[in-house]
This record gives sequence, C-alpha cells and structure tokens, in this order.
Amino acid sequence: MEDNKSVLKQWILSAIKNRNAAELKEIFETIPNIDIAEAIEDVDDVKSLLYIFKVVESEYTAEFFAELTSDQQELIISAFSDKELVDLLNESYADDIVDTLQEMPANIVSRVLKTCPKDIRGDVNRLLNYKENTAGSVMTTEYIEMKDNVTVKEAINTIREKGKDAETVYTIFVRDNKRTLIGTVDLDDLIFSKDDEVLNEIMNKDFVCCNVNDDQEDVAKMFKRYDLTAMAVVNSENKIVGIITVDDVIDIMEQEASEDIAHMAAITDMEEPYLKTPIFKLVLKCFPWILVLMVLQVFSTMILSSFEAEITKFAILAVFTPLIMDAGGNSGGQTTTMIVRSLSLDEFSGKDYGKVLFKELRVASIIGAIVGVFAFGWLMFEMSVGIVNTDSVRSLGGNYWGHLCMIAGLVGGTLFVTMLISRMVGCSLPFLAKLVKLDPAVMCGPITTTMVDIVSLITYFLLWTQIVGPILGI
Amino acid sequence: MEDNKSVLKQWILSAIKNRNAAELKEIFETIPNIDIAEAIEDVDDVKSLLYIFKVVESEYTAEFFAELTSDQQELIISAFSDKELVDLLNESYADDIVDTLQEMPANIVSRVLKTCPKDIRGDVNRLLNYKENTAGSVMTTEYIEMKDNVTVKEAINTIREKGKDAETVYTIFVRDNKRTLIGTVDLDDLIFSKDDEVLNEIMNKDFVCCNVNDDQEDVAKMFKRYDLTAMAVVNSENKIVGIITVDDVIDIMEQEASEDIAHMAAITDMEEPYLKTPIFKLVLKCFPWILVLMVLQVFSTMILSSFEAEITKFAILAVFTPLIMDAGGNSGGQTTTMIVRSLSLDEFSGKDYGKVLFKELRVASIIGAIVGVFAFGWLMFEMSVGIVNTDSVRSLGGNYWGHLCMIAGLVGGTLFVTMLISRMVGCSLPFLAKLVKLDPAVMCGPITTTMVDIVSLITYFLLWTQIVGPILGI
Repeated sequence: MEDNKSVLKQWILSAIKNRNAAELKEIFETIPNIDIAEAIEDVDDVKSLLYIFKVVESEYTAEFFAELTSDQQELIISAFSDKELVDLLNESYADDIVDTLQEMPANIVSRVLKTCPKDIRGDVNRLLNYKENTAGSVMTTEYIEMKDNVTVKEAINTIREKGKDAETVYTIFVRDNKRTLIGTVDLDDLIFSKDDEVLNEIMNKDFVCCNVNDDQEDVAKMFKRYDLTAMAVVNSENKIVGIITVDDVIDIMEQEASEDIAHMAAITDMEEPYLKTPIFKLVLKCFPWILVLMVLQVFSTMILSSFEAEITKFAILAVFTPLIMDAGGNSGGQTTTMIVRSLSLDEFSGKDYGKVLFKELRVASIIGAIVGVFAFGWLMFEMSVGIVNTDSVRSLGGNYWGHLCMIAGLVGGTLFVTMLISRMVGCSLPFLAKLVKLDPAVMCGPITTTMVDIVSLITYFLLWTQIVGPILGI
Repeated sequence: MEDNKSVLKQWILSAIKNRNAAELKEIFETIPNIDIAEAIEDVDDVKSLLYIFKVVESEYTAEFFAELTSDQQELIISAFSDKELVDLLNESYADDIVDTLQEMPANIVSRVLKTCPKDIRGDVNRLLNYKENTAGSVMTTEYIEMKDNVTVKEAINTIREKGKDAETVYTIFVRDNKRTLIGTVDLDDLIFSKDDEVLNEIMNKDFVCCNVNDDQEDVAKMFKRYDLTAMAVVNSENKIVGIITVDDVIDIMEQEASEDIAHMAAITDMEEPYLKTPIFKLVLKCFPWILVLMVLQVFSTMILSSFEAEITKFAILAVFTPLIMDAGGNSGGQTTTMIVRSLSLDEFSGKDYGKVLFKELRVASIIGAIVGVFAFGWLMFEMSVGIVNTDSVRSLGGNYWGHLCMIAGLVGGTLFVTMLISRMVGCSLPFLAKLVKLDPAVMCGPITTTMVDIVSLITYFLLWTQIVGPILGI
C-alpha cells in the first residue's frame, strides 16, 4: 500500500515535470481520484497542481479537487483566475463546495461565494445554514425532480440532458402540481417500462423520506432498514429540498460509531482524525472525565475510610478491594455496552425493560456463581503459594486453613453480590437515560461503576464485620 | 412508531380475515415490505400468512418473505406445495435464500435445495461454502456481465431482458473473451452514450474489485473510499464470481462497529441481537473475560500484599489505592480507544508510531499535571472536611496540615506518573498488536490496565517508603 503510493507519486510528478499531458490523462483515466490525491497529499508546489487542472479533463478534476487537502485547495483557489474558478465550481456538487468552504479562511470563502454561479451560490448558502448533524447539513441539492404526468420517454430525455449535473440519476423524485413529493422512480424502472407510460403509473408509492431537521443518525437507520440508495429530504410542507445518497450514509455511520465508541471510553466527541487533532483539544477531550470519575469516587473513598480501623487490624482486607471493585466495573461495563448498543440499533424499546431485566437477573446469577466459585479457588491458590502474604492469618492461631477458606469465601460471596448488582444497575441505567432523553453512551458507564463500587464495598465490609471477622475473632 | 405498528397489524389482519385481496394489495403497494413484516412478526397462523402469498404479486412477496421471522418462514415453506416453493425461489436472490437456510432445520434445507431450480441451487451451494466474514460469504450471484464488444443498444436490451433477475442493474461488469474482468459500466453511462458505441469505449477502467477471500471489513472500507454502489468479487484468476452491493456494506459496517465496541468492553463477539441471544450464550460471552482480568490482577495483588506492613501502620494509604488504579485504568482506556479506532479506520499505519508516541507524551504531560494538581486539591478537601478520616495523621503529632499536604502530594505525584505511563502504554500496545497481527480491540484494554496498575502501585509505595513515610516519621 505504502509502496504503491510512493510509486504513484513519482509517476505523477515525473509526468508533470516532463509536461507529459497524455501520460497525466492516462493516470487519471485508470486510477481512482482518491488514490491520486492521497499519493500527492504533501505536494505543495502550486505550479505542479495547476498543471494537473490545466491538462486533465474537468470531469476528473472536480472530484479530484474535493479529495485534496484543504491547504492544497486553498493554494489552488488563490491561484485560479475567476473564470477557472467558475469552471471548477460549475463541475462541483454543492455539498462538496460546502465541505471545502468549511475549512477555508474568510477571504477565500467570500471570493468563492462571489464567483459562484447564482444557482449554486443559493444552494451553498442554504446548506451552510443547516444545523450540524441534521439531514439538511448532509444533503445535496443536485437531484432530478419530475412531474407525475411525464412519460417514460420524456423522463429519459430529461435525464440525458440534465443528468450530468445531478449527484444521482438512479432515483428520480416525482412531484405533483403543488411541488409535493408523491413518489420515486428508479432508473431501472424506466428502462423496464414502455416509452409512453407516465411516471404516475410506474412510480413507487411506498417510498420513505426524511425532514431537513431529522438527526443524521435516524436518516442512516432508514437507509439501512429500507435498503435505499437515495432518499428525498423534505421541508415541513412536504416539498423536496434536497437528497441524501448512500455514500453520505456510509460516512455518517462511521462517524456515529466513532462517537459511541468514544463516549463509552469516557472521551467527549472525536470529530477529527487523531493525527489532525491539536494537542490542547486532545487534552480537553480526555481530562474532564478523569476528574469527574475521580470526584465520583468520593463514595468509595468514604466507605473505605470509615473501615480504616478494620484495615489497620487486618490489612489483608485492603489487598482484595481493588480486585472486587475492578470485577464489578468490568461486569457493569459489559452489560451497559450491550444494552446501549442494542438501544442505539433500535433492537428494543423502553417497553422491553422488564424482559431485559429478567434476562439479566438470570444471566447475572449464573455469572455471579461462576465468578464467586472461581475467585474462591483463585484466592486459595494465591494465599497458599504465597502470592498473598498470609502471616497475619497465621498469627491468629487456630485453624489456619479454615481461616483462609473464610477469607476466600468472603471475597467470593462479595463478588457474587457484585456481579448481580453490576448487571442489574448496568442494564437499568441505559433505559433510564433513554427515558429522560440523555445519551446512554455518555453517562451510564461511570455511574454504574460508582454505584457498584458503593454496593460491593459495603457488602464486603458488612460481611466482614458481621460474620467473618467475629468468627476469626477479630 | 409502536402505535403505527399495531394499527398496521390490525389493518392487515382485517384485510386477511375479510378475504379482501384488493385492500391487501394496496397495503403492499404503499407500505415498505419490512414495515409490513415487522407489524405481523408475531402472527403464526399459517393460513393467514399463506393468503398473503396467494393474493399479493410475487414481486412484493419474495422480498417480504426474506423479512419474515425464521419461524414464519419455516411454517410457510412447510405448507407450500413444490410448485409454490419453486415460484418463490425463482423470485428470490441467492443470498437471501442462503440467509433463510442458515436458520432452518435440516429437513427444510434439503427440501428447499431439492426444489431449487438448478442454476439457483448451484449458486446457493457455493455461497453456503464460503468462510464467514469473507467477501464470498456476503456476495450475491445475480449480476449482469457483458463482453466488451457489445454496443450500448445491445447492452440496454440485455438489461431489459435479464435485469429483473439481477440484484443491481446500476453497474454492468465488462469481461474480455477469457472471462477476465476488465471494466465496469454504470447504467447512467449507458443512458448518456450513443446507441452504437461499444462498452470498451465507455467503460471505467479505473474500477476496483475484491477477492472472494478478502475480509468483509476491507470490502466495506473500499466502498467508503471509492464511493461505490456495487463491486465485483473475483477469484484468484481474476474472473468475476459475484458482486457485493452497497446495502450489504451498510450491514457489514454496523456488524463490524458492534464487534469493535464489544471487544473494547471485554465481551467476545455479539453476532445476534441481544434479545435473541440465549442466556447461556450471554454468560459465555461475558464471564471468561471477568476471570481473565481477575487473574491478570495477580501482580497488583502481589504488590499490595508486599506492602501490607505499611498499610497496617498507616491504613489511609489503602483508602487511596482504588482512586489511583481507577484513574490509570480510565486514562489508559481513553488512549487505547482512540488509537484502536484510528487504526481500524486506517487513519495511520505502523510507521506513524513515533509521531503518535511523541504526541501522546505531550498530551500526557499536560493531563498528568492537571490531574495531579486537581487530585492534590481534591484530597485536601476530602481530608479537611472529614470525608476521609484523618485521626491517624493527627495522632502523628507535629505539623498536621503539613502532613496532610504530604499525603495529598504523594497521591498527586503518583497520579502524574500514572497518567504518563497509562498514555504511553495505551498508545503503544495497539501498534504492537497490529505488528503481531492480533486484533488490537481485544487485548489492549486489559493489558494496559494491568501494566498501569503495576507501575502506579510501585510508584505510590516507593514514594511512600523512600520519601513521604520517612518525613512523616513512619
């Protein structure tokens, strides 16, 4: 991969250096634009870049331009004459222009908007105004719309004329006289139909569409559910204002998955690639949660502190607290993750809470039993081979092995309770978060851990002070 | 949503009950198949289901059948005559049939394969044999392939004849005389071209394709990178054997994101929706990692145990260990998550390790300083208001507030080191995992936590026994 990239770079640069237009054209005809753009991503010699735009056909360069880095785009726009800029903008889709502008300094933005042909400028301005992460912000305005009384033959002719400017011709959007969206026609339906049929007869009436203000995540879910390649975006009067195509949806899905993953690891949103994120932003994304989680630990600190006398008398108790707290945190995290993911994929709704809770109760009992028994055996092993220092137990006198069993049993029993509580809390909080309309991915992990820590520490020390301690005579 | 579903269910059931074929047809024409299938997902009266297949046109029912639950599919197949089954299979795509068969009992599978038209049977058998999660296992065999000397007019006629059986007609795959894939033609290219041009002149030569054995995750990445709607799958001789369409890719992306999320929370793969996963499977997915993590804690247990004497003398030390270990775990988890996600999105490759490490070093220093200073202040607060019992410090005599500062400083200093180490280890392990070709998402979290626990506990107790303890006279 890396090797291909550097070979391709050399090839392109030598074609530019030798002013070999034919070779450069051949490269663009046989290699995808994005591979070319990536190969020369660190080329910042504006003359070389301009040569490409001079000799390669605009059907390739408009897309190629969209794949360049924003620094390169800025260089090129600055060096372009107004006429060249108009040509480039004419070949570009409005949503690509918006993506470019969002990274440019103000003087470039105003020059582009001034040079933009009027119809594109209106679209670009409109797209720039939609709220982030809504359907409006990801849609494009180059689509084909027809009235429902158009014949198949007329429709195909219109596509031949105007299709080159549209982002997709695979879905034609059909409207009535009032510009209300009433159906969609797929390009293959046109091919399979007779020339004199009208769109009204062949269009899909069971189409779905979304509103400009819908969340992009919901849009992606509709694409998945209905296997779409393009969807109309309508305003509140049900008039079509743009379309979203499936390649946008793939980007949305990746972005939303990254967001969920970040939230679960207690990182605030990652919008940019890691290497492009400035250091201070990385710091800002990470440190607040570390502090919040530390403050949330106040309860477990308080509990530990209140049992300080027990720890002083029998320090081995303190050796096992991290083990119990970690197991509870891990187990709660597993449950929360599963439930949050299932909720975000709409696998179940709020009314399934009872079913989930009952299922978790059974799962937790089994896991609790396994973990409890395993911990008993593992601690007996650790104590008998000397991984854990047992001098304090030996100094108690009496039945040494019986005492070890009591201690291992104390930890095992606590873990059984911990597993139960962690899964009950871990499966309940995401539902609660959904009920009060918070993002379940953000808060559930930390709060689960905090609550489980409290319950497991109290269980541990209560079992100790009420049962095991007295038996051991401490 | 829920309400719409139950209204739709009533509507469908009443249409079936009144044997109102026209109404049922209208429902199928105006409402997407998947919504209908979901509305009646708990209908198990086979007569009602069969009535749908009797009156609704097969262009709707084949897709509708694929959306039903496997129990319903089994009921219908069992009740179908061989002729009805042949009709259904003829209208279905080979990959949908494979999905259905994978959930059916053996007698149903063999009946379907026996009844299957010969050409479909071959395809189904072949698809059933590809390894899970490869391109071969998700591809379909219904595609349109043409020779490169075909004219545009002939091509459109072929599409009109055979297109109804293909999963997509939007991409035509072009081959030479030896059946080697040499290009692709998009349907809109055909529409935009003159009738007598041949495919060789208008086809895209810069197409990409994948091998049957490629990982489905890599296939999804190619779709995203090249904005594809369909891609050819070729065998080792570069001959086309199937295609993957973009709707399959959306499912793949969701599945892969779920897998990553599960791995990061120490859960083994989640293949099925939560509610459909049997209890024993949930137990199996979750408990092994809890045990593994417990065993990995052996090192921190050992360290804590070896400092038991210090804890006995000054139990307040044990009160703060969970706080330090949790902060280290959280911080390491943040870094690992970011790096693993970036690696899995191909944002950087192995050779960027130096850049990442240096960046993390700077980020970690800043976060370490912030967290260290904050912890100092927070602990001073906890100790001065009595959240943490400080009787043991008071009993030391001497400068009480000075001693509190020493203890808070000990924790703050340890946290500074912990933050540094956690981010260094957390960013290095994913690269290491990639180098030795392990899945970074699986192992990096737990191992980071284990290593950070070791380093931070040793730092904490060394700072105590070498510096702070002696100053406090303990």
